[in-house]
Amino acid sequence: MWPDHRILDLFAVTVPIVQAPMAGSSGVDLAIAVTKAGGLGSLPCALVTPERVRADVAMFRKRTAGPLNLNFFCHVAAEPDPARDVAWKRRLAPYYAEFGLEVTAPPAVANRRPFDESMAALVAELRPEVVSFHFGLPAPELVERVRAAGAKVISSATTVAEARWLEARGADAIIAQGVEAGGHRGMFLAVHPEAQVGTFALVPQVADAVSVPVIAAGGIADARGIAAAFALGAAAVQIGTGYLRTPEALTGALHRAALAEARDDETVLTNVLTGRPARGVANRLVREVGPLTDLAPAFPFAAAGVVPLRAAAEAQGIPEFSPLWAGQAAALAADLPAGVLTQNLNAAALALMERLGAPGV
Amino acid sequence: MWPDHRILDLFAVTVPIVQAPMAGSSGVDLAIAVTKAGGLGSLPCALVTPERVRADVAMFRKRTAGPLNLNFFCHVAAEPDPARDVAWKRRLAPYYAEFGLEVTAPPAVANRRPFDESMAALVAELRPEVVSFHFGLPAPELVERVRAAGAKVISSATTVAEARWLEARGADAIIAQGVEAGGHRGMFLAVHPEAQVGTFALVPQVADAVSVPVIAAGGIADARGIAAAFALGAAAVQIGTGYLRTPEALTGALHRAALAEARDDETVLTNVLTGRPARGVANRLVREVGPLTDLAPAFPFAAAGVVPLRAAAEAQGIPEFSPLWAGQAAALAADLPAGVLTQNLNAAALALMERLGAPGV
Repeated sequence: MWPDHRILDLFAVTVPIVQAPMAGSSGVDLAIAVTKAGGLGSLPCALVTPERVRADVAMFRKRTAGPLNLNFFCHVAAEPDPARDVAWKRRLAPYYAEFGLEVTAPPAVANRRPFDESMAALVAELRPEVVSFHFGLPAPELVERVRAAGAKVISSATTVAEARWLEARGADAIIAQGVEAGGHRGMFLAVHPEAQVGTFALVPQVADAVSVPVIAAGGIADARGIAAAFALGAAAVQIGTGYLRTPEALTGALHRAALAEARDDETVLTNVLTGRPARGVANRLVREVGPLTDLAPAFPFAAAGVVPLRAAAEAQGIPEFSPLWAGQAAALAADLPAGVLTQNLNAAALALMERLGAPGV
Repeated sequence: MWPDHRILDLFAVTVPIVQAPMAGSSGVDLAIAVTKAGGLGSLPCALVTPERVRADVAMFRKRTAGPLNLNFFCHVAAEPDPARDVAWKRRLAPYYAEFGLEVTAPPAVANRRPFDESMAALVAELRPEVVSFHFGLPAPELVERVRAAGAKVISSATTVAEARWLEARGADAIIAQGVEAGGHRGMFLAVHPEAQVGTFALVPQVADAVSVPVIAAGGIADARGIAAAFALGAAAVQIGTGYLRTPEALTGALHRAALAEARDDETVLTNVLTGRPARGVANRLVREVGPLTDLAPAFPFAAAGVVPLRAAAEAQGIPEFSPLWAGQAAALAADLPAGVLTQNLNAAALALMERLGAPGV
């Protein structure tokens, strides 16, 4: 028996685990496995075409009758800044030379569009049970269209102020994303990465500040983390890194190798890979150019300079220019099928909470 | 009933709460109140004379028969570096001018000596039940003298590697100090503040890595945090910021005012106040000179340049040059007598764990 049913009821799930949407590293197979196991599977939609989303949702619906979360980015799109892109390429030029790459190649087009009218139309067509946003919420009329399509709306807060903002704009639940989390910080009001808040401090303060249920994220990869999140006042957890080693994830081989060896103190927040702070295993690019630098162009333009380097390095089996997204609890992640992992986590967290409540019984 | 009795047995306490020793902000009154309430009171000894420690311990023994923790620093003492001190004074010169201070005054003598022979003799004389160290452990022969005096030895780890190091050198228990914690990071092998680990990720990984019991610290200021720490595998908690607002603490008026208003995202790790990374509320000095800067002389010499500024500013009621040590959960701290607070935390954490284990019963 879970001590808080608000998220179970809101999403109509039996397991209070949201699989984190991980653009580039998770797809429909992982979402299906988690939803079939009783949790909430998520499809990241920020980097893929509408046709791909349609095909994935059709596949999902064929395989399970459970709920689906579609995830979108809703950052304020930055204007291209060619001078800054040139300075960035200049900073990266020694690496280009090392791999024999042409630094004058035109920058790749930004491939991370914020949520817009066309995506709202896609949501209305596909009718997911949940839509989650990263980097705040889109304009109120777009949120309203999502809601009118029957979806619950959730988003991430990295501070109490962001949680209050999300609740005031109608979020049905709030993901409290502690600084331990892998991947992009959801920060949209907060501007200082060095003042981002740990999960342990963030979850109870967010729970005190808002009346909607809180989903804890960041550093949670096993049953202990789930039980602790409920103790802190969360009604569910979101797990990302904990699923990256499952066979259903799309995690690349170099990324998997890094995760298998990642110690607690080997990840950092860096903006060198995309222009926004995100947590990953520190590799050569991150250490030498960052981890945080004013030189990086605004999200997502920094990625354009890195992509050719990453491709050239990966072709040689070198992970030193790749985004190796990982949270600080990567070492706790299990190498199990995602459905088994989800059910194991559910059972073990319930058993742990029983032991906490009745030791020696 | 606490689900883990290892720390209760080790320290012969009934409440699994260690009051964090806070040099400059806590003294014997706070230690007495916490021990009388069933926890472990701590006396910070790094900044005071042996005579003062003797008098405080005598007072403590008169007021309670419970256990006492004496806390010492054991950093590797840095050599004075006059050129660096001059450069630091130059960086601070505009502030000196603002307060009409003489920048050429000789730097104050470093007042934070590491644990040495004389302190070991003091421990042998006073026979505290527990001795805690910050910044690692002293030389093995000094640790042996402490142990021979009958004291349990504990220290803080900020990474799994530090926890393993402490266990290998005989620590009886390990404080897992998550990055949310206020005051000085205990880091002694770790060198990168930006890779420090959140409590949520650190505690279970340390618990997996060592066989001695783990005391969770960082972001814990209410019953939810205590229950969560036990869920993560801790056998006790250490609470610092949560006691800073009690009447027994020596917290100054400006510091108390800052704590009463501190939001979750207003603290940072800074080295500008002492030369070592420590978490406090960001004020003008921290924002303008730091938060982390290579200009700061090694610990504790950076403090020498700041002390005159702090004194001049505080005399005018200005907190912008003071160390306002605080963890990220400062907003959860209660303004209650320390004994009442300790007993409330104990009862509320037990009740919460019962509810987690048997919801709806």
